[in-house]
Amino acid sequence: MRKNHYHEEMLSVEDARKKILENFSILSTEKKLLLDSLGQILAENIIAKFPIPPLDNSAMDGYAVVSSDTIDATNNQPSKLKVIGSVPAGSVPTKKIKSGQSMRIMTGAPIPKGADAVIPFEETDEKTRNNLDYIGCNSEVKKGDNIRLSGEDVLKGEEILSSGVLIKDAHVGVIASLGKSKINVIKKPVISIISTGDEILEPGEKIKPGKIYNSNAYSIASMVTSNGGIPNIIGTASDSEESLNMLLDMAYNSDLIVTSAGVSKGDYDVVKDVLFKRGKIKLWSVRMRPAKPLAFGVLDINGKSIPHLGLPGNPVSAMIAFEQFGIPAIKVMLGKKDILKSSFKIIIDDEIINYDNRRVYARAIVFKGEDGKLHAKLTGNQSSGVLTSMSKANALAICTEDREKINIGEEINAIFLDDIDDLFF
Amino acid sequence: MRKNHYHEEMLSVEDARKKILENFSILSTEKKLLLDSLGQILAENIIAKFPIPPLDNSAMDGYAVVSSDTIDATNNQPSKLKVIGSVPAGSVPTKKIKSGQSMRIMTGAPIPKGADAVIPFEETDEKTRNNLDYIGCNSEVKKGDNIRLSGEDVLKGEEILSSGVLIKDAHVGVIASLGKSKINVIKKPVISIISTGDEILEPGEKIKPGKIYNSNAYSIASMVTSNGGIPNIIGTASDSEESLNMLLDMAYNSDLIVTSAGVSKGDYDVVKDVLFKRGKIKLWSVRMRPAKPLAFGVLDINGKSIPHLGLPGNPVSAMIAFEQFGIPAIKVMLGKKDILKSSFKIIIDDEIINYDNRRVYARAIVFKGEDGKLHAKLTGNQSSGVLTSMSKANALAICTEDREKINIGEEINAIFLDDIDDLFF
Repeated sequence: MRKNHYHEEMLSVEDARKKILENFSILSTEKKLLLDSLGQILAENIIAKFPIPPLDNSAMDGYAVVSSDTIDATNNQPSKLKVIGSVPAGSVPTKKIKSGQSMRIMTGAPIPKGADAVIPFEETDEKTRNNLDYIGCNSEVKKGDNIRLSGEDVLKGEEILSSGVLIKDAHVGVIASLGKSKINVIKKPVISIISTGDEILEPGEKIKPGKIYNSNAYSIASMVTSNGGIPNIIGTASDSEESLNMLLDMAYNSDLIVTSAGVSKGDYDVVKDVLFKRGKIKLWSVRMRPAKPLAFGVLDINGKSIPHLGLPGNPVSAMIAFEQFGIPAIKVMLGKKDILKSSFKIIIDDEIINYDNRRVYARAIVFKGEDGKLHAKLTGNQSSGVLTSMSKANALAICTEDREKINIGEEINAIFLDDIDDLFF
Repeated sequence: MRKNHYHEEMLSVEDARKKILENFSILSTEKKLLLDSLGQILAENIIAKFPIPPLDNSAMDGYAVVSSDTIDATNNQPSKLKVIGSVPAGSVPTKKIKSGQSMRIMTGAPIPKGADAVIPFEETDEKTRNNLDYIGCNSEVKKGDNIRLSGEDVLKGEEILSSGVLIKDAHVGVIASLGKSKINVIKKPVISIISTGDEILEPGEKIKPGKIYNSNAYSIASMVTSNGGIPNIIGTASDSEESLNMLLDMAYNSDLIVTSAGVSKGDYDVVKDVLFKRGKIKLWSVRMRPAKPLAFGVLDINGKSIPHLGLPGNPVSAMIAFEQFGIPAIKVMLGKKDILKSSFKIIIDDEIINYDNRRVYARAIVFKGEDGKLHAKLTGNQSSGVLTSMSKANALAICTEDREKINIGEEINAIFLDDIDDLFF
């Protein structure tokens, strides 16, 4: 039944990750509708083709005036100016203002020639008079008052955003204000997900004795989505070469193929055989718990070389291995700058036992203790089959390879799984 | 031209937000495919209909044995056991094991009757022998070793997730493992966005003198998406009642209508007239800068009452008003628990001037200073027309109503606009 035992080196997490990430680089670009580009990496420099604002314009609703006409104006001695017209927003005034004249003007509307200030409605007698041919100015305005100058926000030819920026809400607004409706961004990687094993049922199917429901495809697909990739769940291969080959063929259009199960010592060789036949596959042991068995390689899918990450079948192992190796690969392909999550210090309120010199990623809930410091408790049973331990966790507490035990009260490193903002306030 | 001046109360940010949020409540539920529910709020309790694992099963690849057969077994004196069959994952063993017998078993496969432990391959002589009718056990295993008990992760009838939980990656995996392919979640709110003004061009259109490009629809739509809503950009109304009425009619299918511009004192009355005619609209001044003018009310859209938020036309004002009033409304509708962002302390490295007792939200870049503390610098020109000040910012630094000036080096509150994790490590 078993044909061969592949040589397994035991790699550190860092060495395994390095070997994996060597096979990935930033993806090519695509032109996208501005609104659909949110969260992707900009792949062009955004240059202003015109200044913003394009023309000198009013910062207030009021009257465009010649400022020298308002010298010494007060409530009791208003400067009386003739109103020769109005400038709604969006129109370009054709009339020119002379001393003694004014034009009613809306916020954003271009300043008429001759005017050098705007007096707001509140500082005129507009409210109290019926005759709008004239307006009384109740205070003095100085040259430039309430005028936004052309180019105040953006100069013509200015580089507003540079290639490599992660596109956020305000960037979308800024790019729109420059008149662009489409932009070049780095493509989102397509991650094909294949489960393996005769024991796998799909959610929605009726339960049968000895079978278990597929959870890995769903948790991994969610992690892909949460990290900016496009998940493509292909299906579950039975333990036959034919079945796995068929599903692999369907993954031709992906940037990474992820399989789950079939990579442990003693697993049915069909998975390993297919992977070896179709490409350059390495099977490793990684010095970590959970997720010791890991496969990585490059598969030939109809003449196309596609990287392949073979996750362990255990649900927690699969998620932690994807967190350590899959998500960094997605970030490299997306062109993100911070590939690895930072670790941070926590005080551990439970023991962590490490009986075989691996790096232990213990599922933990981090919270702010009464001492104001970050503490962590483990989320119950740490067996790699117990997915609820992962769903309750907001962080992974780390016991390093060189420690046999972490004692209660020790300060150790952890990696967050969730947003952590609330913990700091 | 102007027909009336509406009474404007000056409200605090908190009072305005309270008056607005009174009009929103959690939306109804919808049944969704599991994978599409990521990031939404669960609207049912998830109860396990069967235990996980469903049956006692092997935690290792190895041999299912009667533990008492292995007492005192060593490399030199292995216990020799007859192999009476194998249990692949996904099958239910029909044979029963007696003393002196074993079955080859894969991780996850159900334990055959009679067996009470699993001995891993590594502790057998499997690799070195050709005759697989018998297997030698090189070490002792105790009752229960390498067996995962039925219900170890989840008991039958156990409540695994409760209504109200925000669905994360691992939750999707856990729900899948319980066999559910569809779940009830709180609907995502649909936010219709209408711009107003004769001066507005759409991105992609050719620039014309006196016109400016629509940026508010794009920045607000992005903020809706980033916060879990569904943006529905309806279009830009010209300054006529007919045009605005037509676009409002198209927003009948939304949970909130957002308009931008048309709410300042002195704006063309058409926007205000339409809003007043179609519902119960309040126009307010909010004691904040930017974004002092704000409209909120409930519009009648073809017999349906839909809340309406009228944002100022200035791009920065629109974003900050939406941040303070629109996003909390979205979070209420989504059923989220933390409606408001927490504020945090920063040391300000620039002055903030406050000349009229409003609360100032200054666009700022927060960074970790050489002293290890969080510092903030302002992002240049703080005029409400200058959208680049917003696109460079990662936070809003707050000058309270009672302060005329914040001096360099003072510790004040700020609200983050971006993810902040990196700042803490």
